[in-house]
Amino acid sequence: MTVGAGDLRLDRGALFTDHYQLVMAQLYHRAGLADRPAQFDYFYRTNPDYGTHQAGFCVTAGVAAIVDWVADTRFHEADVAALREIRTPGGHRTFSDDFLAWLIEACDFTRLEISGVREGRVVHPHVPLITVVGPLAIAQLLETALLNHLNYPTLIATKAARVAMSAGGAPVLEFGMRRGPGAGVAEAARAALIGGCAATSNVQASVDLGTSPRGTHGHSMVQAFMALGEGELAAFRAFAAEYPDDCVLLVDTIDTLGSGVPNAIVVFDELVAAGHRPAGIRLDSGDLAYLAVQSARMLDAAGFTEASIVLSSDLDELTIWQILTQIQLEADELGLDADRIRNRLVYGVGTRLITSAGDASLDGVYKLVGITDAEGTWVPAIKLSENPVKVPIPGPKEIWRLYDRRGRATVDVVTAVGEDPLAGADLILHHPHRAGVSRRLRRSSIERAERLHEPLFHDGRVVGDHEPVDELRARCRTEIGLLDAGVRRLVNPHEYHVSLSDRIKALQDETIRRARAGVADDDHDGIGPVATA
Amino acid sequence: MTVGAGDLRLDRGALFTDHYQLVMAQLYHRAGLADRPAQFDYFYRTNPDYGTHQAGFCVTAGVAAIVDWVADTRFHEADVAALREIRTPGGHRTFSDDFLAWLIEACDFTRLEISGVREGRVVHPHVPLITVVGPLAIAQLLETALLNHLNYPTLIATKAARVAMSAGGAPVLEFGMRRGPGAGVAEAARAALIGGCAATSNVQASVDLGTSPRGTHGHSMVQAFMALGEGELAAFRAFAAEYPDDCVLLVDTIDTLGSGVPNAIVVFDELVAAGHRPAGIRLDSGDLAYLAVQSARMLDAAGFTEASIVLSSDLDELTIWQILTQIQLEADELGLDADRIRNRLVYGVGTRLITSAGDASLDGVYKLVGITDAEGTWVPAIKLSENPVKVPIPGPKEIWRLYDRRGRATVDVVTAVGEDPLAGADLILHHPHRAGVSRRLRRSSIERAERLHEPLFHDGRVVGDHEPVDELRARCRTEIGLLDAGVRRLVNPHEYHVSLSDRIKALQDETIRRARAGVADDDHDGIGPVATA
Repeated sequence: MTVGAGDLRLDRGALFTDHYQLVMAQLYHRAGLADRPAQFDYFYRTNPDYGTHQAGFCVTAGVAAIVDWVADTRFHEADVAALREIRTPGGHRTFSDDFLAWLIEACDFTRLEISGVREGRVVHPHVPLITVVGPLAIAQLLETALLNHLNYPTLIATKAARVAMSAGGAPVLEFGMRRGPGAGVAEAARAALIGGCAATSNVQASVDLGTSPRGTHGHSMVQAFMALGEGELAAFRAFAAEYPDDCVLLVDTIDTLGSGVPNAIVVFDELVAAGHRPAGIRLDSGDLAYLAVQSARMLDAAGFTEASIVLSSDLDELTIWQILTQIQLEADELGLDADRIRNRLVYGVGTRLITSAGDASLDGVYKLVGITDAEGTWVPAIKLSENPVKVPIPGPKEIWRLYDRRGRATVDVVTAVGEDPLAGADLILHHPHRAGVSRRLRRSSIERAERLHEPLFHDGRVVGDHEPVDELRARCRTEIGLLDAGVRRLVNPHEYHVSLSDRIKALQDETIRRARAGVADDDHDGIGPVATA
Repeated sequence: MTVGAGDLRLDRGALFTDHYQLVMAQLYHRAGLADRPAQFDYFYRTNPDYGTHQAGFCVTAGVAAIVDWVADTRFHEADVAALREIRTPGGHRTFSDDFLAWLIEACDFTRLEISGVREGRVVHPHVPLITVVGPLAIAQLLETALLNHLNYPTLIATKAARVAMSAGGAPVLEFGMRRGPGAGVAEAARAALIGGCAATSNVQASVDLGTSPRGTHGHSMVQAFMALGEGELAAFRAFAAEYPDDCVLLVDTIDTLGSGVPNAIVVFDELVAAGHRPAGIRLDSGDLAYLAVQSARMLDAAGFTEASIVLSSDLDELTIWQILTQIQLEADELGLDADRIRNRLVYGVGTRLITSAGDASLDGVYKLVGITDAEGTWVPAIKLSENPVKVPIPGPKEIWRLYDRRGRATVDVVTAVGEDPLAGADLILHHPHRAGVSRRLRRSSIERAERLHEPLFHDGRVVGDHEPVDELRARCRTEIGLLDAGVRRLVNPHEYHVSLSDRIKALQDETIRRARAGVADDDHDGIGPVATA
């Protein structure tokens, strides 16, 4: 089987990594630190900001793929042969034979233990979503693959969830592969289904995921019939003859209301006469709200009150919201029932979904948060930075979601291991990076606390079976329903609370203090003992 | 070999398509049109607009991959078996056995003839970049794969070219795979190299493309040493011991000027004493311009005037331009030579390059422009739309680039086949979509005309060998050098002229006129002869 794009491999093996990961791994190997147990956390810092609108949460995706990668990936002889050829700018070999032998013999990703948040869940900034514990060099070598497998799908699942919210209950179809990012569109299709899309046009992804692909026809079909002197109506008739029970006609090739919809109605009448039920029309250009209202009137007048109206053309959550708002205004003016129009709409969403238009990347990072010293004691690790937002939460921890008396998710709390967030009368919750900002939560306002992390890869194996996308989509819908409306808002959403417990806050402060003290030593002595918490 | 991301296949076979392409192909098959020769053109409509800055041209990439796809891809038994299972929403099979048999027996993509613009060339909106001629159903089925293989790489090569221009001659390194779009990052790395990047951090892509990956170390390495009580200096020493001749030290883990650079200088002194030449430092946070100037002063004072300064952290063409401008100001104030600082800079560009931040998609389309009638005569095809920008240029055509007396590319002209753009005394050039806008170009001002299209896939085979990325990068650099400075401008660039010849303009007008007349007939008669040009 050919796997590639020209010269390129698209599957992701052990060499699917940034060069510096191998550079660091070799150094750890040389320094005798390769097998030292360490912990890395994956989290993101900010929800996507699309400029004119902003996300109030994210939806996880890509988790199944990265744990599969961990299960399946090893350095093979061919990988090591390729690494042997890599040279520094000065012409020296970068990787030594003993390190390459270590990659083959010892760099077994199944030595890692991974826990985290399952796919399809609602998540928030600064909360560790995935925790990786294992040999330092191996956990380091996982970084690029993990970030690549999680950041983009989570970004797309989030965008899809927003589009689905905007569409209300109406079906959203993912149509983006033609302008999406190369081979990445398969992952995007899956993420879009998790986030809320009913189907994708991507045939291979649909087959892989066990769903039915969706799509009707393009302008080229009508153009071909027109060029051959047969016109739009003949094209529609040919389409209806081939697909009598799934006949969605694209009506904007020539003139939507002057030609497309009338011709569609002619064909629909013929379909009904032959015992079939016409499916609907698609509008792909022009003022979609106006055209939807007018098309609905024409279809209604002809008796096709059930025919769907599929809208496409650079849609996203904001344009859908605008279309629905305009439909309400137009319907009010015309004395029509806007709900009856809205309830027949279907949305085909392409480019703006698959590229997460407005904010095309999630800022997910994978940070070393702890390492064991020579005696096997865990030591928190930290990066001191000029920007307090960038200081990660050190050490082992647990992640909780607290639900209030209404059953709504109200805060995600990071605690020390073994710390019960509901043990005391009240909870003191600290802002994850704003010094001195804390608040008190009454114990009585909280109904229950849920642990967010589950084992994902344990004892050399993936935990549990792959979850079908239908289940993941249902989970996502349920989770979004547990958010306050303010957090779900498309524009300027309310900030969901993410907090540190007293104990974890004290640990963060202490780690920073010691690290700073160590730096101060460094300034004077060149080297000094640091952060031996 | 496992090829996937969880459940997904990442290689792109015959099912890598939008569902509606198969729906249309089956209809063409049923209507006896599947084998009818047709022509599709690939072009894009607008250069990327990043909001605060805009592209004045694009750089082609992805061509090698799509012609390879055409050569290698067929419908296999497993593909057809999957299609057999696809159902309409009503539960009927979508694809008939005779169509599926046709896919296996007759749907041979090597029956297509493809010509177009080679990779690494500068291109402009509205100009057909790729022309596909062949059986209607097969050419239709190519659409999604072609758009997917070309749009994203062209977008990224374009962004890389802009970043490289902004960086002047300084090396730009592609670091984006961690936040890039899943498996698409391999294609992005190749496109970035074509556009001007000197190297990528992506190890697999580097191996595939025969280049050396680049990268140094991350913060985690310094953090690990700090957590273990050994500090930044010990981390730097360990790194220098392992990579004495390629020692680039990341100096911002704690405090760039207070700790990182002084510690790097200590280690560089030790390297020199041991007979090595330190490579440089990397700055990844803070005010990069200020820190670059101050780091350069400190390195100079210590005698390391040749050490590189690698900058990274959300860079793109605009931030690099700003950094260089600020360096000039800071150097002027301090009485330093700004050129000496600029000449030691290297740029690591990640997320904003690999996502084409600001404009994450290229609006490339693939349009039916001609089809043969039952007698074998070519008939132009057109889509009438409310937006004149969307009317494509019908029929067979040739594409020329005219160079002026200075050797600069001055206009791309679309002509009829066999039309010599330099035959007359003057050229009348028509705007591709603004009615009535034309201009006269003196024949004497033009030095030469170059045909832009070359055969890419002919007689069942890919034409020519794969071109190495080094050659493609060199071609791109040369091509950009042939543009006027105004077209190369990062912000609000001058619009490069794209024009239609008199003959092709007359054909477009006539086709539109006939199509509109046909529509008028449709309105009255339901069907009428259209566009039998």
